[in-house]
Formats: sequence, structure tokens, C-alpha cells
Amino acid sequence: MIETPYLLFLGDAPDMLAAKVAIGIRDWRPDHAVGQISLPGCGADLGLTEMTLEEAKEAGAKTLVIGVANRGGVISAAWKELLVKALEMGFDIASGLHNLLRDENELVAAAQTHGCTLHDVRIPTVAYPIANGKNRTGKRCLAVGTDCSVGKMYTALAMDTVMQERGMKSTFRATGQTGILITGQGVPLDAVIADFMAGAVEYLTPDNDDDHWDLIEGQGSLFHISYSGVTMALVHGGQPDALILCHEPTREHMRGLPGFDLPTLQELRDTALPLARKSNPACQVVGISVNTQHLSEEEAIAYLTKVEEEMGLPAVDPYRQGAGRLVDALAAI
Amino acid sequence: MIETPYLLFLGDAPDMLAAKVAIGIRDWRPDHAVGQISLPGCGADLGLTEMTLEEAKEAGAKTLVIGVANRGGVISAAWKELLVKALEMGFDIASGLHNLLRDENELVAAAQTHGCTLHDVRIPTVAYPIANGKNRTGKRCLAVGTDCSVGKMYTALAMDTVMQERGMKSTFRATGQTGILITGQGVPLDAVIADFMAGAVEYLTPDNDDDHWDLIEGQGSLFHISYSGVTMALVHGGQPDALILCHEPTREHMRGLPGFDLPTLQELRDTALPLARKSNPACQVVGISVNTQHLSEEEAIAYLTKVEEEMGLPAVDPYRQGAGRLVDALAAI
Repeated sequence: MIETPYLLFLGDAPDMLAAKVAIGIRDWRPDHAVGQISLPGCGADLGLTEMTLEEAKEAGAKTLVIGVANRGGVISAAWKELLVKALEMGFDIASGLHNLLRDENELVAAAQTHGCTLHDVRIPTVAYPIANGKNRTGKRCLAVGTDCSVGKMYTALAMDTVMQERGMKSTFRATGQTGILITGQGVPLDAVIADFMAGAVEYLTPDNDDDHWDLIEGQGSLFHISYSGVTMALVHGGQPDALILCHEPTREHMRGLPGFDLPTLQELRDTALPLARKSNPACQVVGISVNTQHLSEEEAIAYLTKVEEEMGLPAVDPYRQGAGRLVDALAAI
Repeated sequence: MIETPYLLFLGDAPDMLAAKVAIGIRDWRPDHAVGQISLPGCGADLGLTEMTLEEAKEAGAKTLVIGVANRGGVISAAWKELLVKALEMGFDIASGLHNLLRDENELVAAAQTHGCTLHDVRIPTVAYPIANGKNRTGKRCLAVGTDCSVGKMYTALAMDTVMQERGMKSTFRATGQTGILITGQGVPLDAVIADFMAGAVEYLTPDNDDDHWDLIEGQGSLFHISYSGVTMALVHGGQPDALILCHEPTREHMRGLPGFDLPTLQELRDTALPLARKSNPACQVVGISVNTQHLSEEEAIAYLTKVEEEMGLPAVDPYRQGAGRLVDALAAI
């Protein structure tokens, strides 16, 4: 559990693309961010108040979150100087970088001296159990995709936002680095030992109120040969009552796998649903989320209308239209 | 890679059941075992020559293999005395125990002093890549099961034995502790980090001669909610040309999961084959291996005949009948 609120560190990010994590926190958990802090030459700006460490401390920030990818995979001297100063002032630091904070001697020493915590959210900190498949109370919704990176996290966060607005009981359950930094907790599923993957998902989505929904962040795809095992653990460990099918219609091949075609939405439904029903016989596919960022408004509407007719399910792009109709579909089961 | 030949350590095994690993090596790689060594009170006997460490050394043994489960999960003082002596004499030690050799200070110290290697085969020693799905030369056969522990390893080893006898090119590819100790190499797949599971299977089954078969040891089951992610990585990373369906017909529920029914062989076929064809469009289901240990000879024959008719595929129990007909089916594709 990462302590909030955050100060979002943008470092010397060359552009906004590099600041994906910080943008996610700003957009989905604005209350978590008291401000941003940049180094000279930074090309990213979240539009939050630019603060010194002192000002952020004054504003109540507990954790400095690395909101940016580091250039060349190296934690530079300029970064380190600021990070050490933050630790000396009592900030915790949280990071999803490949290079771990714990591998940097100066940071470890400063954290120990000042009683601060370094959160490397790529590394599991819990000894997860082996999944037992026992029926859990409460309801669970899992986003599954025809491919990786088609908008599964976005869909779950958008649904959670609508449910909160409507006063429904819901929790977004993060299973990846960005999701964990946004919400402050979760399971870094792709870094879990194989035998414990499904158990980690059970741990993440425990018993709850009968009318509470866990919105589980999906990972990978059952059709992506590099990561399908991780997805399978979500389908079985997540014990979903509802599946949302996610798709990006302009992609020419599976991400990173030239020559591998994407499955159709029908194929995704017919593969994922029988597997999900092994862990929850009541599971249903309730809706479709399409990432239409590469289509015009007109093309997007036409595509969504066609999918909706073909599949007999609500089909929306939550970025363009909000996730209201997906939540309606959840509420109806 | 564990150096052969082995001396098989039986310790103070209460009975033969506890000596599963040693039995596997004796049965499948008899040339790997120069003899056995027991402690007082041992209730297991492989029928190999009982040797002292000195005699085993003289006979050329390179590695002492822990062929037995340890009582209460503790490496006892009596074990340690013998293991330290073995290291002092230059033996390597290999173990699949949950308690790691590397966590025992006396063993680590003796190994360092005498230049010996401690092999904890539960722990991966390779930084496996992420799977890339590229088409590999050679052929691959994967055993998939309706459940865990239905005879997948046995089936692959039995097929490998027949293929060797026939002068065919084949390699048994171990993916679990017992298989790794039997063959001296492999990937402990259930201990691999989630993101690298499929890549580890690709690493294990590389390019080979066009007429060479890898016989890949299966793990878990696509229908076992605790371990299905590991199985999925085998189905996709293994790029199988052929699947063998494995089943145990008397089991009342999925192993360790009361209330979870086993799927039918038809359901296994219809789930596994489309998934396997994502990584190898030419994949076929070629045969069925049934573990009939809990059936009489007559019941077994009747069951196999029925399955063979229903599925239109050769169905055998390799323990009763050998794996010849499964190999015939492989050779025919």
C-alpha cells in the first residue's frame, strides 16, 4: 500500500508520451496528486501546480511517485540528487521502472537513514497462495482483450469512475505497474511466480459485499502467445461474474508478433466465456469496449453500431462516450 | 545441466512412495544411476547396488541426487552429515526439495570449499526471454490433461523410450522437478516469472532437425483453475505439431478442488486444439493416453475401446500397453 497523496515526479521527460504514469494518476485519481515536480529540460506538463519538495511537503504529500520513463534505462545523477533529497525530507518513493530503486545504493542508504520506504511496484511483496477456487462473495468483472494494450485498464477505470459517480460499490483492482501506481495498491501479476498467479488474483479480489463489484484490470490476451498464461490466471483466479470484451479494430497483427492475426470478437467471446465458467458457472459477457482512437468520429460510430448488432451486446468506446452503458449492463445482471 | 551418472540418495525414506524421484530415474534413465545409498531405517529399495560414497565415486558417479522427499520438510542432521561428506569427496548434489540446498549453510560452505555445485532444480537458473512466437524447425508433441497428475510425464517418457528404440530422433523435454532430475536438464516452469513462461518453453524446445520430435512434459491442465496459466504457456510456447490428450477416468473431482468436475476428453480437445493452433496452425490431436491404474484389466480394455470409438483416435494406457500406437500416430503426421 503506497501512502497518498503523491507528488508526481516528471524528471526530464522529453514529452508527454514519456509521462504515461503521471497522466494516469492525474486523470483517474486527481485527489492523489498535490502537484508535479520537474527537472530542467522537462518537456512534459500535467497542468498541475509545479512545486518544490518543500512546497509539496507543506501541501501534505507523502510519496514521490516516478511518473515518467527514464531515458536509456538509467537513473541519472540529476534524478538521484533530487530523489535522495526527497528521502532526506521524509518522502517515500514509488516507481514502476525496470531499474529498481532498491538497486541504487544511495537511495537505499538514504531510505534506511530516514526511515522511508522505496516501493518498486514491479516486484511482488506478498507470498501469494496457490488458488483454491472457493466461491467468494461479491461480484467481479474482468476486461479481456483480443490483443495486449487495447484499453483494458482504461475500460476498467472508466467503469469504476461511473460506478462511483452513481454511488455503486466498486473497486478497481490493479494488476500492472501503472494501475498499482494510480491506485496505490494491487498485484504486479506479470512478475508473480507461475504457480501463484491465479492465487494472487484470488488474493486481490477477496470476499466482499454482495452488491460490490471488483473491476479487475486485464493483462495480455488469451490469444497473445507471449502472455496468454497471465491472462488465463486472471480468467480463472478472477472468478468473474462478467466479462467485457476489449478490441482495437485497426491493428494489423498481434502486438509485437508480426504474422499473428487478431481474433474476432466472436472468437474471443467463445474462448474466454467457457474458460471463465470453469471458475464461475454464472459468468456472462456483458459488453464490448472498443478503442477507436485511430478512427474518425463517423467511422467509430459506424463500427460500434455494426459490432453492437453482430454481437447483440452494448459496444462503446469509453473514451469517446463514457462507460455508462457498460455499467448499465453490469447492473442488469 | 546436471552431470551424470548419479548416485541415488534414498535417505531414511519410510516407503517406496516417498522415493518417487529415484524410481523415475531408475525406470527411465537406468544408465544414469550407478547405485543407491540409504541411511539406517530406510524403507525404500530400488533394487540397485547399495553403495558407500567411496564405492560410488569409484564407479564414476558425479552427482548425488536426492531421490526422496524429506520428512517434515526438514533436511535432518543425519542427511546433512552424509551430504557434506559427499561434497568433501567432490560430488555435486541435485535436489528438487522445497527446502533448498542453498539455504543450508553447511552445504553451501562445503560446496564452495570443494568446488562442487548444488543444483536446486526448483529454481530457474536462466534469464528466459519473452516468447516471440517465431516458427521453429523440428517437430513438437505436448501432452495435455483433463486434470493435473494424470500421467502426462509418464506418457511423454514412454513415447520417448519407444522412439529411441525405433531409432527415431526424439528428446524428452522436462518442465518439472522430477523430469529435470531424471534427464539432468529442463525448465522448472511452475517457478518461472509469469511474463517469461512461454519464452522459457520456446527456449526449452529450440530449432531442430526436421524429423526430430521434442516430447514436452505437460504441467497442470487448462481446466485446473490453480495452474491453468502454466498449461497455457506450454500450449503457446511449445508450438506443438501434435497433442496427446491425457486422462484418469476414475477421478471424482479436479485434483485438490472438491466441487470442480473434470472436463470430458471432447471438451479438452475442443479447448486445447484451437488454442494450440494459434501458435502452430498445423497442430493436430493424434492420440489419447489413459491412466487406468484404478481399473481392472478388463475394465481398462473396455474403457479404452469406448474412448477410441468415440474420439476416433488411438487410446492406450502406456503403462499397460506401451506407447507404440501413440508413436505410430506421431510418425504418421
